[in-house]
Amino acid sequence: MAMRYLAASVSVFSAKDDNGKSYAMTASSVTSLTVNPPALLICVNQSAGIHSALRVGSDVCINILSNEQQEISNLCSSTDSETDRFANEFWNQEAVPFLKDAQASIFCSIDQLIPYHSHTIVIAQATSVTNASTFNTLMYADGRYLG
Amino acid sequence: MAMRYLAASVSVFSAKDDNGKSYAMTASSVTSLTVNPPALLICVNQSAGIHSALRVGSDVCINILSNEQQEISNLCSSTDSETDRFANEFWNQEAVPFLKDAQASIFCSIDQLIPYHSHTIVIAQATSVTNASTFNTLMYADGRYLG
Repeated sequence: MAMRYLAASVSVFSAKDDNGKSYAMTASSVTSLTVNPPALLICVNQSAGIHSALRVGSDVCINILSNEQQEISNLCSSTDSETDRFANEFWNQEAVPFLKDAQASIFCSIDQLIPYHSHTIVIAQATSVTNASTFNTLMYADGRYLG
Repeated sequence: MAMRYLAASVSVFSAKDDNGKSYAMTASSVTSLTVNPPALLICVNQSAGIHSALRVGSDVCINILSNEQQEISNLCSSTDSETDRFANEFWNQEAVPFLKDAQASIFCSIDQLIPYHSHTIVIAQATSVTNASTFNTLMYADGRYLG
């Protein structure tokens, strides 16, 4: 019950594997780690499809969602296949896949992968960012989207 | 700029050192890690006073704040000394210090301390929790409290 009170932005974590296949996963476990270097961390279940695409040095993107993106949040947290998650117009997949209309897309290089029981703590260093001009972040807590 | 869009609950992280001195620090970098074991992580600047009190196996508390607790959030993120942070009626300090009226107080034992540049990733396993009956979590993003 207590954990339901931990509120967070909703992000979609995206990557491409060595064969060029795209992966995306909705996550609320993104947090800032250090300013210098500019690093974030995200906790990823080892059973998630995207986990197989994660390597130290590989490029990934953390897309902070806006309140207009509940649909993509639901899609990337459903049991639909990875392929279905990209069968829409939301994505730019030229290089590392990112959401074109996210609140912010933080492009990162993976610096460390730290396994812990069922999950891996992914430490990612930001290399570039794009962001919207005003705050409109989708948030989740208490078992529901807020706002 | 992009990091301003990462929203989070506001928590106060609290501990007592080997000499019985209490420490508390406001943090937005708390996130759930695994369900089994029930573990959370929190990122702590190595220059924070509380950092010297953190040992593997030691007891700590993650207090998720309510919207009525902006005052304690400000107090525990100010430059006031650790002692001043406890000069009020908000705390129970019989054992590990905790906030009596938090949204939730998650009592934990530190499992791992992982240094990363200026910070340490603290992995804490929950041992017991108390929580309020309804959702009223204090949140921070875009350089301000929300709600």
